[in-house]
Amino acid sequence: MNTSLIYHHAMDKKLLELLVCPITKGPLRWDAAQQELLSLGAQLAYPVRDGIPVMLEHEARPLTSEELERLRSERLAQPEA
Amino acid sequence: MNTSLIYHHAMDKKLLELLVCPITKGPLRWDAAQQELLSLGAQLAYPVRDGIPVMLEHEARPLTSEELERLRSERLAQPEA
Repeated sequence: MNTSLIYHHAMDKKLLELLVCPITKGPLRWDAAQQELLSLGAQLAYPVRDGIPVMLEHEARPLTSEELERLRSERLAQPEA
Repeated sequence: MNTSLIYHHAMDKKLLELLVCPITKGPLRWDAAQQELLSLGAQLAYPVRDGIPVMLEHEARPLTSEELERLRSERLAQPEA
């Protein structure tokens, strides 16, 4: 890994860390597979449509109980995330 | 660097790479210092306010000629970014 790639990752990390759920003001997790920003606190998934994050409650999808269970177990496994 | 940290960085990278300028549909760069998403193509800076990206043309700030010059030279120096 060269230095400019490390720089690129570091900048990226800070963007996601800065974003918050508009309802809870808590952190969001990024689901690359479904292109959604997940709020465990609000139990909602905000879509990224055509490259634009849509962080509005009425556009969000409720997380299923299975998704919530998976997210909670992942959080325990990755305390730094 | 442990494996979960690598995973975290990789997920983050994909979020920024997926985001596009709503005008040009081109890539955005993240300015952590000013908390802005920069579109070189549209010559605009979109703010992230209270953790919410505001990707609207009428809320964006025009980039100065000095900022554009710096961004163009950084792009040349970091072809993979």
